[in-house]
Amino acid sequence: MLPIRKTAKQGKRGILERLDAGEIVIGDGGFVFALEKRGYVKAGPWTPEATVEHPEAVRQLHREFLRAGSTVLQTFTFYASEDKLENRGNYVAEKISCQKVNEAACDIAREVADEGDALVAGGVSQTPSYLSCKNKTEVKAVFQKQLEVFMKKNVDFLIAEYFEHVEEAVWAVEVLKESGKPVAATMCIGPEGDMHGVSPGQCAVQLVKAGASIVGVNCHFDPETCLETVKLMKEGLQAAKLKAHLMSQPLAFHTPDCGKQGFIDLPEFPFGLEPRIVTRWDIQKYARKAYDLGIRFIGGCCGFEPYHIRAIAEELAPERGFLPEASEKHGSWGSNLSMHTKPWVRARARKEYWDNLKPASGRPYCPSMSKPDGWGVTKGARELMQQKEATTEQQLKELFQKQKI
Amino acid sequence: MLPIRKTAKQGKRGILERLDAGEIVIGDGGFVFALEKRGYVKAGPWTPEATVEHPEAVRQLHREFLRAGSTVLQTFTFYASEDKLENRGNYVAEKISCQKVNEAACDIAREVADEGDALVAGGVSQTPSYLSCKNKTEVKAVFQKQLEVFMKKNVDFLIAEYFEHVEEAVWAVEVLKESGKPVAATMCIGPEGDMHGVSPGQCAVQLVKAGASIVGVNCHFDPETCLETVKLMKEGLQAAKLKAHLMSQPLAFHTPDCGKQGFIDLPEFPFGLEPRIVTRWDIQKYARKAYDLGIRFIGGCCGFEPYHIRAIAEELAPERGFLPEASEKHGSWGSNLSMHTKPWVRARARKEYWDNLKPASGRPYCPSMSKPDGWGVTKGARELMQQKEATTEQQLKELFQKQKI
Amino acid sequence: MLPIRKTAKQGKRGILERLDAGEIVIGDGGFVFALEKRGYVKAGPWTPEATVEHPEAVRQLHREFLRAGSTVLQTFTFYASEDKLENRGNYVAEKISCQKVNEAACDIAREVADEGDALVAGGVSQTPSYLSCKNKTEVKAVFQKQLEVFMKKNVDFLIAEYFEHVEEAVWAVEVLKESGKPVAATMCIGPEGDMHGVSPGQCAVQLVKAGASIVGVNCHFDPETCLETVKLMKEGLQAAKLKAHLMSQPLAFHTPDCGKQGFIDLPEFPFGLEPRIVTRWDIQKYARKAYDLGIRFIGGCCGFEPYHIRAIAEELAPERGFLPEASEKHGSWGSNLSMHTKPWVRARARKEYWDNLKPASGRPYCPSMSKPDGWGVTKGARELMQQKEATTEQQLKELFQKQKI
Amino acid sequence: MLPIRKTAKQGKRGILERLDAGEIVIGDGGFVFALEKRGYVKAGPWTPEATVEHPEAVRQLHREFLRAGSTVLQTFTFYASEDKLENRGNYVAEKISCQKVNEAACDIAREVADEGDALVAGGVSQTPSYLSCKNKTEVKAVFQKQLEVFMKKNVDFLIAEYFEHVEEAVWAVEVLKESGKPVAATMCIGPEGDMHGVSPGQCAVQLVKAGASIVGVNCHFDPETCLETVKLMKEGLQAAKLKAHLMSQPLAFHTPDCGKQGFIDLPEFPFGLEPRIVTRWDIQKYARKAYDLGIRFIGGCCGFEPYHIRAIAEELAPERGFLPEASEKHGSWGSNLSMHTKPWVRARARKEYWDNLKPASGRPYCPSMSKPDGWGVTKGARELMQQKEATTEQQLKELFQKQKI
Repeated sequence: MLPIRKTAKQGKRGILERLDAGEIVIGDGGFVFALEKRGYVKAGPWTPEATVEHPEAVRQLHREFLRAGSTVLQTFTFYASEDKLENRGNYVAEKISCQKVNEAACDIAREVADEGDALVAGGVSQTPSYLSCKNKTEVKAVFQKQLEVFMKKNVDFLIAEYFEHVEEAVWAVEVLKESGKPVAATMCIGPEGDMHGVSPGQCAVQLVKAGASIVGVNCHFDPETCLETVKLMKEGLQAAKLKAHLMSQPLAFHTPDCGKQGFIDLPEFPFGLEPRIVTRWDIQKYARKAYDLGIRFIGGCCGFEPYHIRAIAEELAPERGFLPEASEKHGSWGSNLSMHTKPWVRARARKEYWDNLKPASGRPYCPSMSKPDGWGVTKGARELMQQKEATTEQQLKELFQKQKI
Repeated sequence: MLPIRKTAKQGKRGILERLDAGEIVIGDGGFVFALEKRGYVKAGPWTPEATVEHPEAVRQLHREFLRAGSTVLQTFTFYASEDKLENRGNYVAEKISCQKVNEAACDIAREVADEGDALVAGGVSQTPSYLSCKNKTEVKAVFQKQLEVFMKKNVDFLIAEYFEHVEEAVWAVEVLKESGKPVAATMCIGPEGDMHGVSPGQCAVQLVKAGASIVGVNCHFDPETCLETVKLMKEGLQAAKLKAHLMSQPLAFHTPDCGKQGFIDLPEFPFGLEPRIVTRWDIQKYARKAYDLGIRFIGGCCGFEPYHIRAIAEELAPERGFLPEASEKHGSWGSNLSMHTKPWVRARARKEYWDNLKPASGRPYCPSMSKPDGWGVTKGARELMQQKEATTEQQLKELFQKQKI
Repeated sequence: MLPIRKTAKQGKRGILERLDAGEIVIGDGGFVFALEKRGYVKAGPWTPEATVEHPEAVRQLHREFLRAGSTVLQTFTFYASEDKLENRGNYVAEKISCQKVNEAACDIAREVADEGDALVAGGVSQTPSYLSCKNKTEVKAVFQKQLEVFMKKNVDFLIAEYFEHVEEAVWAVEVLKESGKPVAATMCIGPEGDMHGVSPGQCAVQLVKAGASIVGVNCHFDPETCLETVKLMKEGLQAAKLKAHLMSQPLAFHTPDCGKQGFIDLPEFPFGLEPRIVTRWDIQKYARKAYDLGIRFIGGCCGFEPYHIRAIAEELAPERGFLPEASEKHGSWGSNLSMHTKPWVRARARKEYWDNLKPASGRPYCPSMSKPDGWGVTKGARELMQQKEATTEQQLKELFQKQKI
Repeated sequence: MLPIRKTAKQGKRGILERLDAGEIVIGDGGFVFALEKRGYVKAGPWTPEATVEHPEAVRQLHREFLRAGSTVLQTFTFYASEDKLENRGNYVAEKISCQKVNEAACDIAREVADEGDALVAGGVSQTPSYLSCKNKTEVKAVFQKQLEVFMKKNVDFLIAEYFEHVEEAVWAVEVLKESGKPVAATMCIGPEGDMHGVSPGQCAVQLVKAGASIVGVNCHFDPETCLETVKLMKEGLQAAKLKAHLMSQPLAFHTPDCGKQGFIDLPEFPFGLEPRIVTRWDIQKYARKAYDLGIRFIGGCCGFEPYHIRAIAEELAPERGFLPEASEKHGSWGSNLSMHTKPWVRARARKEYWDNLKPASGRPYCPSMSKPDGWGVTKGARELMQQKEATTEQQLKELFQKQKI
């Protein structure tokens, strides 16, 4: 068995040093979904005021990911831009400033990263300002504000993530790049490309040209779909003779039935996604496939819990030469079942068993696929719904009844 | 909207005072499954050495349940009997004494309980000693040892839980009862009764006669099946003209395909259960049904995460008059989606939507039901497997191939 | 390989001679469903005027069943009682008399039976008269009228089938018994018993006491459920120390989700049942199980096509000593695939393959189980619907919308 | 309600006259699958010797399709080429000459066509000669031989159908074209094109250039996939500025999980396809979509029963101005349920109900999708299987065990 590496502060090497040396970098999992289930984040706004309100909960989640094998801890600053926090301000019990949220996020991430061999990445994501058609200067100012905190707190590198439009992602990269720190950029797109129809290959090219050293995708689609998209990015970069490290942080949900805009349009989003949660074995397959595709920054997004991250670290332990700390409590491929009292449970203590299992849902009245709302709604209803921002309850009901017909 | 009750230390009233007054008592969720996913418990042995090794992780989980609405915090002493810990001792990095594990569990639970209006329950569960046919005196001595810690740490009441044989459960109740503290007792059985064929009604009668003030079921089956079983217990008590409070702490997995021994025999146990995880809406239905059945101690077992417990508290908020603290971050029935940018996501901000959703699994190659291994294995193979404790890998493969035919 | 027995007129022995000698008697399949798909029967009324309108179509179906192995051909007189035909008269293009329909049915069945070693059974089924509360004399008169035709046409024996109420079935048996011909009686009930709550065991006892020599079930439930019900009948007869031959003619649809009233309440009835159609392999399992249970009159009802009947004959060929004529065109367990050009299709030419196949539906957006309308409708809606015979379209729509909520 | 048109011999107009006038031409369904279930065709060889052995069975099926609305009756000459019949000769009880089979097929089709307003189409399909690499002259000679019968029997037009390679299809069209009769040509390909990688668009272009007046697809894929393929053909023709009528005759099975070679590679082929059978409502959607796509020759292939053809005729009745004869026994969209005794069954008598039904399979232990054997077999196993024509049973078992891992 490979040694479990007790996390211990080493002479830290930066993200690019590691990737350039061919090392595998393991990202962390999805904070908003995990903390929503733990009671600290509100679905809908998805803002990270918990860094100030409940730092112990955020700290504990970071620790679990570190222990599971993450070598990058992202500051919990998703949707922590000023325009977003103000927009959703009414959800936050006591008004907490954008700066405080971002600073606390940096402090907590740094504290935990220093318990092990991990880097801290400061992250920005898409803004309401862009969607409400503010101009380049205005949008960049929003990113600039978060960047100031990241510089003050001296994060190790920067990630621009969760962008549906490459134009905004490029603006973000341009702002972050000015810091002199390495910049990674991931988009929440599928193989069909961004919301303006720019292909994954083209997105990758534009991001690298803007200054990103690492590009890839995060969120919105399941591991398989995300890998397809990164493959298209890789091909786009090759065609353009550009070089960059590749990165993927997919959902931990099976979403073969997604439309172009990803899992948000699935009828189960966000409170009925349970039957779609991927197993640790699904993740091992994902990690292997990602590695084989040449991706070296491998992590997760919404739905990824610590045990999913551990599955990446376990699958790639032969390549990395060690197991993560949390593998103290996990036998590879279920080997810890070998001492169970029932022989048929003991017989599950082997790779073939879990690799081939087709897990049942226990839900005979449920289908295996859904039609995304983007298709399911009749065209007329969809148009009407899009026109009417202030749709009344009654209208919605009527629309939905039509939708069902 | 109902007020959110900030948890605050009140003049504490005991468990029976509360139940006798007709109050709803909300239990907590499943520690071994939740902490396995967080990286602190090993599936297979399922022992709670984390109380000593990683108290911060145990504390945080207690806090999340408290915040979600639990009014009882169970000490994390599942499988913490001396015989079990020794049995599985080789899994524990540094040998930790049974006493230390139990004491730490009490301390952590008390610390968190005191942050709010919660009671601490010391818990014992079935022992290897009973299964290896030790006698009544020997088995009782095992319970006695744990009880001593609970008395020293002055827990508020005691729970004997997760018993497959009513005989052993009765012995546990008899030991615990000597303490003078109130005793609850739950069995991990389904409507078919205990492993010796004693019906749920008879089990309940025996437990109450032995001194339990609260009886019910926990673990092994899904909410619906557990409620069926508690109903049979209730009827048994009525027929015997006995009185007791009722309690249920089911799995948070859909398991309609279980055989008599519950989810352990399902092929997905324990590493492929994800598609079976129940939604918060399933839990609201469970809570309502449990309440209507007269159950007043309502909690969960394996698979229950903090958001499942919150769902109990939200469903029963009208009866209780307040919402739990974690509801600060949760709109009832998805109401927090009402500000989403997409109108079709906004349209999910209503009870009818979630109440009727039949969530898809995203797994078109998987079935919805499995045959438990207890049935699936051919009779010959099962017998052979049971005879041969030291079954070789090759034999198992052959047996399993037969099983598939 | 067993010989294929060219059907040829032998000295005919009656149904009881055969059964008493321990022979296996194979029934035929479901005429109304098969002819509905062929374009000759109207779903809803399900009346058999095709015997007069399109005798060639009826004759051809009889021939296919004979060729597939049926040793009993039932006259196509389902729902051919006078009260039923009048009731549904408006569906029949030119008014055709009840007598003509019944006579033509007898003539066609006899013509085909005489091409082989088959018996003709005249059949009656439940009447609108009984459901509209006519008295015993009136209901018996309806059966008497059909019996007169059967006597004139000299059928070999009589079957009273498809009764939901044992009281009416007993009346039917009493009428038929007066003819002096052997009488079989099957009810369309499940393990819960008849619509008045009489158990299957009690139903069997009453039918035998009324004069039936053969009892069992037909229609309404899938093969597995029907066998369960016949088993209860057998046990009832044993307890009452009565003797009778056993018979089963189930649906060829999987209906594990049926309520007490069977497949009519399933939302898919009658125009969306396709994904439930059983395979020939399912039927082989059914035939074997029926045989093992002691049933010797084994056939089918709605959904049974000729190839399903052939599957009974092939499964029981070792016991019978020969294969049916249609096996000229069928290799046992797919053996005819052994010459396919693709090796993986050739590999399907074996019993293990088909015996273990879990056939996919190709319908990822569909569930595997439905809620019968008898449950799905809210209680209020159901009551309202039952009160109002003349429910308007608009009311029904409203009720159904409520049902969905 | 539209009138039911009693089929009656009219001054016959040819296929091109009808299509050029913009009429909808309705094809017939799949003979080999329908007659296999009726007991007259052997799966595997799939040859049509029934035209000689059991003409009454073939005649009856033609009649049912005519009654259901078919305006083209295809001679039952699928796989009736001399090389095929010889190849499979050992399946045919008494050796029947190729000429006899083809002549009988023509006679039966003509007899029934003359009972109504239908045309007779003589059909040829792909040959073993082509697959065993015989040259153009040899393959053409095979088609020529069948054509001679079609000319002698004076069929109304000719169809070259079920070709996997456009090269062979072109040869067939060239032979048929010499007759002077109109020629239709359909390939059994999906959107990925023929087995040599020729795209659907290119296939269509080559077929039209070779002389086909009507082009399209038949068999191998479900209706939805076939329409996609025809759409690509249409686009190919438009790009090449060629004109032809379009035709589609898909499977009546849902096959979303097919690989490039269609349903033959699905594990359920050919004896476990039942859960995939499409409903009449699925067919109505198909007919409408086909019509909207500009297809005017709309029929079916394997799995299509008479009621599926009727569904095409009913869906397009508004455009055609009349209903088929078999609609005497069918209320549009279930309207015939309006007199059912149970109000919830009556409530199914409307389009919205059936249009929205997601029919359950009744098979909770089965998945909704399969992996085609072309994927499922490990690469090594597949190669080994393809090398070894005379694979032993034991080897196959071993290969299949590997496949499962």
